[in-house]
Amino acid sequence: MPVNYATPAAAQLSPVAGVRLGVAEAEIRKKNRRDLTLVALDAGCTVAGVFTQNRFCAAPVQICRKHLAGGQEIRALVINTGIANAGTGEPGRQAAQATCEAVGKLLGIGAGQVLPFSTGVILEPLPVERIQAGLPAVFSDLKADNWHAAAHGIMTTDTVAKAASRTLTVNGKKVAISGISKGAGMIKPNMATMLGFLATDAGIAQPLLDKLVKEAADASFNCITVDGDTSTNDSYVMIATGQSGASFTSESDAGWAEVKAAIIAVSVELAQAIVRDGEGATKFITVAVQGGKDVEECRKVGYAIGHSPLVKTAFFASDPNLGRILAAVGYAGITDLDVDGVKVWLDDVLVAEKGGRAAAYKEEDGARVMAQAEIMVRVDLGRGAAQANVYTCDFSYDYVKINADYRS
Amino acid sequence: MPVNYATPAAAQLSPVAGVRLGVAEAEIRKKNRRDLTLVALDAGCTVAGVFTQNRFCAAPVQICRKHLAGGQEIRALVINTGIANAGTGEPGRQAAQATCEAVGKLLGIGAGQVLPFSTGVILEPLPVERIQAGLPAVFSDLKADNWHAAAHGIMTTDTVAKAASRTLTVNGKKVAISGISKGAGMIKPNMATMLGFLATDAGIAQPLLDKLVKEAADASFNCITVDGDTSTNDSYVMIATGQSGASFTSESDAGWAEVKAAIIAVSVELAQAIVRDGEGATKFITVAVQGGKDVEECRKVGYAIGHSPLVKTAFFASDPNLGRILAAVGYAGITDLDVDGVKVWLDDVLVAEKGGRAAAYKEEDGARVMAQAEIMVRVDLGRGAAQANVYTCDFSYDYVKINADYRS
Repeated sequence: MPVNYATPAAAQLSPVAGVRLGVAEAEIRKKNRRDLTLVALDAGCTVAGVFTQNRFCAAPVQICRKHLAGGQEIRALVINTGIANAGTGEPGRQAAQATCEAVGKLLGIGAGQVLPFSTGVILEPLPVERIQAGLPAVFSDLKADNWHAAAHGIMTTDTVAKAASRTLTVNGKKVAISGISKGAGMIKPNMATMLGFLATDAGIAQPLLDKLVKEAADASFNCITVDGDTSTNDSYVMIATGQSGASFTSESDAGWAEVKAAIIAVSVELAQAIVRDGEGATKFITVAVQGGKDVEECRKVGYAIGHSPLVKTAFFASDPNLGRILAAVGYAGITDLDVDGVKVWLDDVLVAEKGGRAAAYKEEDGARVMAQAEIMVRVDLGRGAAQANVYTCDFSYDYVKINADYRS
Repeated sequence: MPVNYATPAAAQLSPVAGVRLGVAEAEIRKKNRRDLTLVALDAGCTVAGVFTQNRFCAAPVQICRKHLAGGQEIRALVINTGIANAGTGEPGRQAAQATCEAVGKLLGIGAGQVLPFSTGVILEPLPVERIQAGLPAVFSDLKADNWHAAAHGIMTTDTVAKAASRTLTVNGKKVAISGISKGAGMIKPNMATMLGFLATDAGIAQPLLDKLVKEAADASFNCITVDGDTSTNDSYVMIATGQSGASFTSESDAGWAEVKAAIIAVSVELAQAIVRDGEGATKFITVAVQGGKDVEECRKVGYAIGHSPLVKTAFFASDPNLGRILAAVGYAGITDLDVDGVKVWLDDVLVAEKGGRAAAYKEEDGARVMAQAEIMVRVDLGRGAAQANVYTCDFSYDYVKINADYRS
């Protein structure tokens, strides 16, 4: 059961002019499962993406990077579940390439105009022939109001489909933003990966979109952790169709701040949904670190807390175990940290300051916060003005159960 | 139940001439528990230590560093369990100092000649008066053949006492080495910490001992991980009494290589015992990384594998889940790693090469190794001659149970 998350209804997800989506059952690994999704883009879109830093990155990630760098206009995205096409070497790259060629043939575009994505079992060959056989069905399913189905089409072990949408009026034009994501651990290499796709009918010049996708990922998908593992296939791709008539080429353009904020908000919602559906999660935790010298050190502290199995089991147990949080701050890697200047709150309760427990702190106040399904851990490092958030979940019996039983 | 580990019998632990140990029940936090240990050293010893890098380091760690740097001859170590004296600020330092003064008075030495160690609950004040009251009993218990009792005296949630001993003949002199350690997670801040103490009757000049304790810790306590957390109190201290008559001042001295190897072997045994008794551990895993450009990158890969909850739950499940191991290699932080050159073995079974599964690999061979209680994961990075080992355990339901239920 996800923590305070339900998939929006189909009617709540705005179509994005210039984007059509289709979903079908291609029996890639199992029957009776929507496992193939196609996103067709009109001419005139800009597309940008960020991808896993894992050196064992999957074949489709390699092809995506190549096609985005190739300079041809991207006109389609194809996503399969079931098989991740990772750890598959040169045959894997050929399979991803063959998938792009099949999509290109169907849509009358070049293979270099297609971005492929795969998620599922690692080390198994991608059955290209099943994807080829399934493509006519996804093609005939293509329509603009299909985001809800597409959110389901990219799921693997997710317990809920993840989607988000916003509309706003900018410079007199109505702008739509819709996105979908999948993932329930940061990685589950047998049925793997975090994927995210966002489209807007705003027009965004390529350099601005390249910058935005990185900023949005840093504020969203790069702030979440379930188990600290980084998948071979992680991808976040952003599409701007321009069909709303509102177009942007520079950070200083009127209305850009609003569009950017809305796109980042949708990205954060898509990313947080992954944590809320984290494997075995019973609580959603925001670790807000402030008062750092730079963002980097705030993130280090946030991840030290967010990754610590000891902290995460304490959240599961609703135990206000301050020692574990302080210890994580202490080993986060800030070598010149003056711990006497650090303050820690659980929601509004000041729990630690001056190197130890706050004088006025009462255990029952900490216990009250820890019993909630949504918890804010706030850390003030007391040495600067930078801040960063990390979103995580607790660590339960079910995490072990899910990951120990996964292949059986 | 620890994995393939039992405490050596008292008769197997050699006395070390110049070292006497005493243990008593001081009721520091609970009754009927040996919770106070004193180690008295004859004049003429050298002493060196390595301590936690955690910025929230405990008061006794701060006092240890100060006394070791102070230049006075160290003549005693005092260790209490029950209360960690961490996160206690200035009152904590005063309590640790008062403990040293009480020990100094009892032994007729200066407070600056005493090293204090604490392990137990964080954020609680140290009851110095109980330590003072308990000191006469530990003083009257002081004897050379008391290592077995001392190993029990420093336990907290350990399920077994941890001790190791070696004797060897060097340059015609019989040399004894004995040590004890405690810890069952890398950190358990409520009843916390890794502690290790080793003594030899070899004579080792201070600069050589300072170097040795770092090398030995790097080969032992710095190679283990249960949950990746670093305690506020971790300490490893080495004592050389010189009473065997075999003395060393330089790496090139005859016999030094043998003594050094034996001391490192005892250190490794003490460190591995902590992993074998790791919280909820059912398996002991050696991650041996070779073929790296330097030791640092080998350790990065070893820790990426050894820390991954996904890898550790797969070990628990006896699941040869290669994707999780490959993914951990891929995200370990070697940015220019050529994954096609990486090979991975489970014991003698080659499981991965050329960026994917090895052609001859059979799942049943991997499953056979994963079912063992002792598993070797060997990774060849194929880019150099450096190597490093990391020792870890699996991640079971009981880990969550122990850490979620700990304070209840």
